[in-house]
Amino acid sequence: MLKPYRLSNEEKIDLRHFDPNDTGEIKSKEEIREEFEQLEHKLRELQDKLFAAKSHGVLILFQGMDCSGKDGVIKKVLSNLNPQGFRAESFKKPTADEAAHDFLWRTHKVVPGKGFITAFNRSYYEEVLITRVHGIIKDDEAKSRLHHIRHFEQMLADSGVVVIKIFLHISPDFQLEKIRERLENPEKHWKFDPSDLEERQYWDQYQAAYEDVFRYTATKQAPWYIVPANERWFRDYLVLRIVLRAMEKLELSYPQPKIEVQTLLEKLREELPSD
Amino acid sequence: MLKPYRLSNEEKIDLRHFDPNDTGEIKSKEEIREEFEQLEHKLRELQDKLFAAKSHGVLILFQGMDCSGKDGVIKKVLSNLNPQGFRAESFKKPTADEAAHDFLWRTHKVVPGKGFITAFNRSYYEEVLITRVHGIIKDDEAKSRLHHIRHFEQMLADSGVVVIKIFLHISPDFQLEKIRERLENPEKHWKFDPSDLEERQYWDQYQAAYEDVFRYTATKQAPWYIVPANERWFRDYLVLRIVLRAMEKLELSYPQPKIEVQTLLEKLREELPSD
Repeated sequence: MLKPYRLSNEEKIDLRHFDPNDTGEIKSKEEIREEFEQLEHKLRELQDKLFAAKSHGVLILFQGMDCSGKDGVIKKVLSNLNPQGFRAESFKKPTADEAAHDFLWRTHKVVPGKGFITAFNRSYYEEVLITRVHGIIKDDEAKSRLHHIRHFEQMLADSGVVVIKIFLHISPDFQLEKIRERLENPEKHWKFDPSDLEERQYWDQYQAAYEDVFRYTATKQAPWYIVPANERWFRDYLVLRIVLRAMEKLELSYPQPKIEVQTLLEKLREELPSD
Repeated sequence: MLKPYRLSNEEKIDLRHFDPNDTGEIKSKEEIREEFEQLEHKLRELQDKLFAAKSHGVLILFQGMDCSGKDGVIKKVLSNLNPQGFRAESFKKPTADEAAHDFLWRTHKVVPGKGFITAFNRSYYEEVLITRVHGIIKDDEAKSRLHHIRHFEQMLADSGVVVIKIFLHISPDFQLEKIRERLENPEKHWKFDPSDLEERQYWDQYQAAYEDVFRYTATKQAPWYIVPANERWFRDYLVLRIVLRAMEKLELSYPQPKIEVQTLLEKLREELPSD
């Protein structure tokens, strides 16, 4: 079921052909409620094996327009993971020190080590999106960065990091509704940033910049997934399936002990009176 | 109910007077099952407010003998938190660079900022425990470090960080049982470290070193809690209550918006056809 959402061939796509309301073959949230819980359970099991095996890291990178639900999907899909092997990293405006370095520096520092899962809420892709839309970098600079990103992700993959890139796809009307919801709920006022409304004016430029991102960085080793995100429950379900599929392919198993288990157990039995 | 477990007056205590099997007034896990879920829900609500308010950080520090359940309590009690505002940090053998710095350096780097909760699985207290038991530092060096820890924690508290220190208290027999369980379950072999068995020989020295820790660093601003941990369900319940109580005292609330909400809403209503 993941194929229609996966881009892995540096394709030139048109985002308008992807329906943000799409829910695949599934009619309602109720239909998948039980399966969702089973999948969550499976993910925790796989995380435990990943942590024990220390053979791979998993990087799940989320991009999307404001209100596309990056925070929400991390909270709903990934917050049941064991926090000792999972981390969510978010990237705000760079500090002076970060801005003084190359554009991959601050994110590279926090990629997952072997045994760990890391979610990126935004990423180095902002360096070819917001910067490009606002003319901070020129098109040829953007192309050069996209080129470096492709190589960087290839290097990660060659070093045992599974790279999963997810674009949460929403419609402009849906975004406006979400902004209004934030304003109408006093407990959500703090989440509202007036600049979100200004950025809306650049919607088409952002979509075009994203299309270039997919075209230059969607590879077999580091595919992009266009996840329809107007229906939050489908967004969550699809992301869970995507992450699970990528981890299942690793065929993880618990490592063999390096110790003489039987000898040790006999020694312990002498110390403990009963079995 | 927390009072019998709290040390906040630099007291000289004898750990043998604390029963690792204690479950307070509660007879069984079933008795608190429903309450536990309500408390978990409450913790998530408080975390959301903490994140929004950005007025305080929360540091929850776990210490205890091998197999006391530091990993387990983080997984059971804290893994439902929103990972975007929560982090678990664990401290293994220091790297060369870390060892070349003062003993608070590597942990200070990862204390929670305002809005965040951080759990420490082990901490700078190892620098007055394992080092002391194995004679790597002398007693007067240990006293000096304990003195610096007290000031460091006071500085954190004065800077808006709630410091919660939890000692997971188990018995030596219980530890042996746990080690045997790890050896008997092939999926847990990887967790077994032969040095755990060697460290068992120093049990009494460790308990004495902990007693000194409580004596010199249990303060009103940064209390220690002796949590009985032979019964895992009571350990989880008590830790949850401790964290909740500390966060409730902050009287957190969502911040007031700095923006003209009504003006903006009217503008948005013009853009959207219906309510």
